[in-house]
Amino acid sequence: MTSADPDADLGLLSPMRGAAEETGDVAVLRALLDAEVALTRAQAALGRAPREAAEAVAGAARVAAFDLPGLVARARSGGNPVIPLVEDLRAAAGPYGAHVHRGATSQDIMDTALMLVAHRTLGPVLADLGRVAGDLAGLAAAHRDTVMAARTLTQQAVPTTFGLKAAGWRKLVLDARDRLRAVRGALPAQLGGAAGTLAAFHPDAADAAEAVEAAEEAEAAFHPEQPEPEPEPKPGEDPGLRLAARFAAELGLAEPVLPWHVLRTPVADLGGALAFASGALGKLAADVLVLSRTEVGELSEGVGGGSSSMPHKHNPVRATMIAAAARQVPAQAAVLYGSLAAEDERPSGAWHAEWQPLRECLRLVAGAARDAAELVAGLRVHPERMRANLTLSGSTGSARALVERALKED
Amino acid sequence: MTSADPDADLGLLSPMRGAAEETGDVAVLRALLDAEVALTRAQAALGRAPREAAEAVAGAARVAAFDLPGLVARARSGGNPVIPLVEDLRAAAGPYGAHVHRGATSQDIMDTALMLVAHRTLGPVLADLGRVAGDLAGLAAAHRDTVMAARTLTQQAVPTTFGLKAAGWRKLVLDARDRLRAVRGALPAQLGGAAGTLAAFHPDAADAAEAVEAAEEAEAAFHPEQPEPEPEPKPGEDPGLRLAARFAAELGLAEPVLPWHVLRTPVADLGGALAFASGALGKLAADVLVLSRTEVGELSEGVGGGSSSMPHKHNPVRATMIAAAARQVPAQAAVLYGSLAAEDERPSGAWHAEWQPLRECLRLVAGAARDAAELVAGLRVHPERMRANLTLSGSTGSARALVERALKED
Amino acid sequence: MTSADPDADLGLLSPMRGAAEETGDVAVLRALLDAEVALTRAQAALGRAPREAAEAVAGAARVAAFDLPGLVARARSGGNPVIPLVEDLRAAAGPYGAHVHRGATSQDIMDTALMLVAHRTLGPVLADLGRVAGDLAGLAAAHRDTVMAARTLTQQAVPTTFGLKAAGWRKLVLDARDRLRAVRGALPAQLGGAAGTLAAFHPDAADAAEAVEAAEEAEAAFHPEQPEPEPEPKPGEDPGLRLAARFAAELGLAEPVLPWHVLRTPVADLGGALAFASGALGKLAADVLVLSRTEVGELSEGVGGGSSSMPHKHNPVRATMIAAAARQVPAQAAVLYGSLAAEDERPSGAWHAEWQPLRECLRLVAGAARDAAELVAGLRVHPERMRANLTLSGSTGSARALVERALKED
Amino acid sequence: MTSADPDADLGLLSPMRGAAEETGDVAVLRALLDAEVALTRAQAALGRAPREAAEAVAGAARVAAFDLPGLVARARSGGNPVIPLVEDLRAAAGPYGAHVHRGATSQDIMDTALMLVAHRTLGPVLADLGRVAGDLAGLAAAHRDTVMAARTLTQQAVPTTFGLKAAGWRKLVLDARDRLRAVRGALPAQLGGAAGTLAAFHPDAADAAEAVEAAEEAEAAFHPEQPEPEPEPKPGEDPGLRLAARFAAELGLAEPVLPWHVLRTPVADLGGALAFASGALGKLAADVLVLSRTEVGELSEGVGGGSSSMPHKHNPVRATMIAAAARQVPAQAAVLYGSLAAEDERPSGAWHAEWQPLRECLRLVAGAARDAAELVAGLRVHPERMRANLTLSGSTGSARALVERALKED
Repeated sequence: MTSADPDADLGLLSPMRGAAEETGDVAVLRALLDAEVALTRAQAALGRAPREAAEAVAGAARVAAFDLPGLVARARSGGNPVIPLVEDLRAAAGPYGAHVHRGATSQDIMDTALMLVAHRTLGPVLADLGRVAGDLAGLAAAHRDTVMAARTLTQQAVPTTFGLKAAGWRKLVLDARDRLRAVRGALPAQLGGAAGTLAAFHPDAADAAEAVEAAEEAEAAFHPEQPEPEPEPKPGEDPGLRLAARFAAELGLAEPVLPWHVLRTPVADLGGALAFASGALGKLAADVLVLSRTEVGELSEGVGGGSSSMPHKHNPVRATMIAAAARQVPAQAAVLYGSLAAEDERPSGAWHAEWQPLRECLRLVAGAARDAAELVAGLRVHPERMRANLTLSGSTGSARALVERALKED
Repeated sequence: MTSADPDADLGLLSPMRGAAEETGDVAVLRALLDAEVALTRAQAALGRAPREAAEAVAGAARVAAFDLPGLVARARSGGNPVIPLVEDLRAAAGPYGAHVHRGATSQDIMDTALMLVAHRTLGPVLADLGRVAGDLAGLAAAHRDTVMAARTLTQQAVPTTFGLKAAGWRKLVLDARDRLRAVRGALPAQLGGAAGTLAAFHPDAADAAEAVEAAEEAEAAFHPEQPEPEPEPKPGEDPGLRLAARFAAELGLAEPVLPWHVLRTPVADLGGALAFASGALGKLAADVLVLSRTEVGELSEGVGGGSSSMPHKHNPVRATMIAAAARQVPAQAAVLYGSLAAEDERPSGAWHAEWQPLRECLRLVAGAARDAAELVAGLRVHPERMRANLTLSGSTGSARALVERALKED
Repeated sequence: MTSADPDADLGLLSPMRGAAEETGDVAVLRALLDAEVALTRAQAALGRAPREAAEAVAGAARVAAFDLPGLVARARSGGNPVIPLVEDLRAAAGPYGAHVHRGATSQDIMDTALMLVAHRTLGPVLADLGRVAGDLAGLAAAHRDTVMAARTLTQQAVPTTFGLKAAGWRKLVLDARDRLRAVRGALPAQLGGAAGTLAAFHPDAADAAEAVEAAEEAEAAFHPEQPEPEPEPKPGEDPGLRLAARFAAELGLAEPVLPWHVLRTPVADLGGALAFASGALGKLAADVLVLSRTEVGELSEGVGGGSSSMPHKHNPVRATMIAAAARQVPAQAAVLYGSLAAEDERPSGAWHAEWQPLRECLRLVAGAARDAAELVAGLRVHPERMRANLTLSGSTGSARALVERALKED
Repeated sequence: MTSADPDADLGLLSPMRGAAEETGDVAVLRALLDAEVALTRAQAALGRAPREAAEAVAGAARVAAFDLPGLVARARSGGNPVIPLVEDLRAAAGPYGAHVHRGATSQDIMDTALMLVAHRTLGPVLADLGRVAGDLAGLAAAHRDTVMAARTLTQQAVPTTFGLKAAGWRKLVLDARDRLRAVRGALPAQLGGAAGTLAAFHPDAADAAEAVEAAEEAEAAFHPEQPEPEPEPKPGEDPGLRLAARFAAELGLAEPVLPWHVLRTPVADLGGALAFASGALGKLAADVLVLSRTEVGELSEGVGGGSSSMPHKHNPVRATMIAAAARQVPAQAAVLYGSLAAEDERPSGAWHAEWQPLRECLRLVAGAARDAAELVAGLRVHPERMRANLTLSGSTGSARALVERALKED
């Protein structure tokens, strides 16, 4: 029944992951192809490649046409998958193959693709966080006067309200959303060529010239059209920068001030924002886990998980999944921060070490956001138990005023 | 051409990984099934299940019969894949289904399976490390008098020999091998049942009784045989411990003193030994990267990697892959060490957070060991360049004596 | 000659640290006292304590009057230093002792103090980063046409310019400055009382009442003045929120929407921005280390470090220090991100685990910023060596245009 | 009252630390001096320095004679404290100054000193762990029939016994002790000289010759004695190895196979064992924290901590401290594992990045071991509450047998 590739990781060990479709190898392959297509399109738009080349490359760049396991296997020798992919895409583009990847370096395509993957993954994540915040606003408002024990260092302290607790969870979720949204909005395309100088994107670059020549031969055979003359650049405009701007625009990504092959702000910022998000949701989970304890019983998940040995149990599984994610993301983010210190124009290790940790952070946060949305949507609150557990009396002080103020934030 | 599951991670972002087959989801599924089979077999061997049940479960436990993507999807609700797997295996075992997983908890199966995966992965890793050490011994011996610059804080210091450098690399590799071998030899099976008390493995346990009853009904319909009477235990022998011992023996894993659901020594030890190994190989890689620099040129990889933009380049790709792995494993190992602090009889997050990081450590070290074996086998040493680069003269002191002594170690 | 406390860490193992004065225990003690003084002042300003109490507490809160080693020793039993500090400050405030710490919890004071320490440390750090960016702008402009080899995966690739490299370093430094400045500008005071509800800051709170009573007795004996009547609050204004606002204003810190005892955005944001800064400077250091290598020789530090065994050496010590810091900060930041998942109204471990890692991040980044300022100010560039090393010819493409554009950023 | 150096860290932010005296800067200074003394002694013992030199250096090497803050300040320029220390020790040794540090490199002294510090710190740590294990054995035996709820994923599962829980804690503590003991027993001295070749320790080494000459002049002025002739080495014995062996013997440290300047097995092993220990104690703490919760109440610390706002509280402070330590050590250990990948004969960053994290790991584990000893010695067990909380009935299975077996382990 299983026809899975024996090497595949389908998530059997990662029930806490999400965004499988947005982040799987097929999605990465799609993003790599999108980057290659955008490059040829940008060149065509500026008259540096025939329009037919862009069409041919776009037509060839169908995910289903590529042998993914084969690409994985061939990626080993050069240490990245773009090298074999370009070979295959060139072959698939037939006479326009010389226009594929022209002037680019592997990292241009890989970095751009991972930004696309991040962008596509974070859309649904932000939506999930919005749902979580919305439901928490409802809980905070509904329970602004639901008194319960505050607990510090595991011991009951003075009273608080469940509304204040929910408002606090929401505040963290909004903080996470703000950070992810800001990072997502700034995700840049990458285009710099071999040394980050955009040298091969200058119309007079030697290899570009060869590529154009080869393409012209191909065109001569196939199509009579000539490349459109490059639209007149503004005086003083750099042809490399012009292409980079167009490339970014094709993809809907930001145009960076400089190629960022070794200026890893986007990746480090993603790491930080994702670690923040995993921890923000981890706070919610940590509280749900405490308050769901058999002896506390003040909260329960709407749909608890069973157990292979004790079907009667009602485990807080969603909170457990979120907590498990929150334990993994900061370590992966530390790897990403560590990769900022990347030597040369392309480092021998620091860059390669980012790929999987970045994807894993995305997946874990996507899973945590999805699980949090489910958890909060179904959360059962037991005010009577909260009251019964409370061993100390006292005022709830500004709890109500704090909730009101916090709910005004958005 | 690609029929890959869109969610699958086949390694497109991980050219530095190895052991794909030993660690993929199919391999994990196989190990999970092996654990279930061993459990029923152990029970049959002690007369607590009919021999036919063991045969039926073993027959049903063929990887290919299970819907892996379906298991992954169903694992989410309970937060682990054993729950749906047991359902499917019970169904597949037909009338003997009640003997599947009898008395066990999900963690018994999951932990045991991951130990099997680790055991199976580390065999080839140890072999690769042995090859690396062997080749390095050859290099150390051959170059015991090959003088080169020692470099400290990036500056040439006094002379050393390449033989001493190779002997140092080998020493670290042997240290890594020793640590991994010791950990591998002690990997334990896990069997404790719901609370780690082995309660459900006592012949009079309620649920065991039910299971036997159900099974007897099934047998009555199918086979006339009765379960063999349990071989006479030694006086005072605990029936739970007896089963646990038999279970471990079935699998060729060690028998632990206590169930280790929340005594995570094996996982932490694996994390430490794997982080050590990644760093030990990382040292070799770091030196190869320095000495391969265009301006240094004292070493080069036998088969350098190309580049998508500069086919003339001869990149030290194997060293780059090893370096990239060495940046990732310590962070993952830190997650594993962090999971030692696991509350209760099963923690809500710390355990689940181990699965994928443990697998990732195994893969990255397997890849690094394989890459190191290739690197060292093909390494090209350029003694003339070493001599030419050397700016300072001086004695190489005890270098020769140190190499001799180091090569006696094994 | 040494009269150092035998327990003291003066930095013997941390030559890469900076901001010793801003972050040492004396500075923390000062900040703790500042927080306590601000609390009494805020209460006095709102008429909830006699003005004399504020004066008395401020007068008593002189760092030199406190027994720091004694506080350290006494901090163990309750697990934080605020408990014994409050005892001593109450004693020192004489008859106004009851107004010390009134209504507050230890965490209010500790968190506020650490935000003050962060604020005070980051001022000079930002200035250092500004200096680095300024000097790098000069280098980028001066060397916009200085051709050198770009290097990827350790091998010379096509040419680039040193100006582009310096502009890239500067971009990262500006990114770091932006992130630290934003975080610094938002550092909040902390005031919530035992449960984060500000309950004890309500004028009718029981313990507040007792404190006022005790203070009144004291005043009756000492001074005839009565507390000023609380200025009329705006209708509907919450007295707890009012005090919290005043408290923050006294300290020049931001007023948070909610008490953040377990909403650790400020600490996580600090961790992220500091990890970013350490990595941003680490990139500069990584390049200086490569380009300073004996065989490369394209850069050298103005004042290289010596060696205890080889006085002739000119080690890139500042770069080494920065690199050493960059290896430590991400791991500490991961601890801070991990502490976001803080259970209850005060967690048993996650909060306490932040204190030293946060301080260490501050110190390491402060040291790296100072070292970077020294490094860049004295950096010696060797264009002739750059040219001589270059093995490949070719255009530098958009390097000049990129530098121009990058230098417009600020 | 406070005369503390304003830069000093006395532990104000680290109530969870221990071993302040064994690990403070004064202790490090002592160890650095011990290493220097041992070096001269070893040379004198082999006739390579006059006996008087060894005496003079030993006499000069009194901690109190050195200006610690001055050393810290001067350590910055060369990036390590050994450089200024050697200057001062040479001056203090008067005419024998030339025999100080002769042939050694800073790293020889620093590494050796840190191994001494580790050795001295781990002695008391092992004793504390022994005490913890002993008390836990008592608890396990006393409570082998004390039934309580097992809890999995926060929910009560089937029953277990407190004895089994205590036996589990003890098993982890024994595992930690075994690992630390093994590492401690193998801590090596470091001696290799500038390049790790022991070149300058050969009797004919140029600088050694100069040093002897200088010393002879000094001796000629001061003392008539000649250096003792070197005892006859065994034929073929290497003079460098001979000295290294003697050096290690002087210090009671192990003699390494090779100088380990960039073969960081000892430091990585320390990191791993310390991370293990912090986690092992963290498990105990995690359980105590759960079982001390107001609503659970099955355990309480003998001496609970108070609170600055709620003196009535009985906080599990020792467990909180241990938990806080367990959150920090794995991250620091990851830095140590990361430093295995150290380029060249001395890396520019990886080595320096070890010093403080290693010390911090030692301190945190020392504190956790001390806190665990206090916690366990005073732990109050409430069997009646355990029974009352138990919501499910059932057998405790093999719990008793497991405890018996576990208590036989040592």
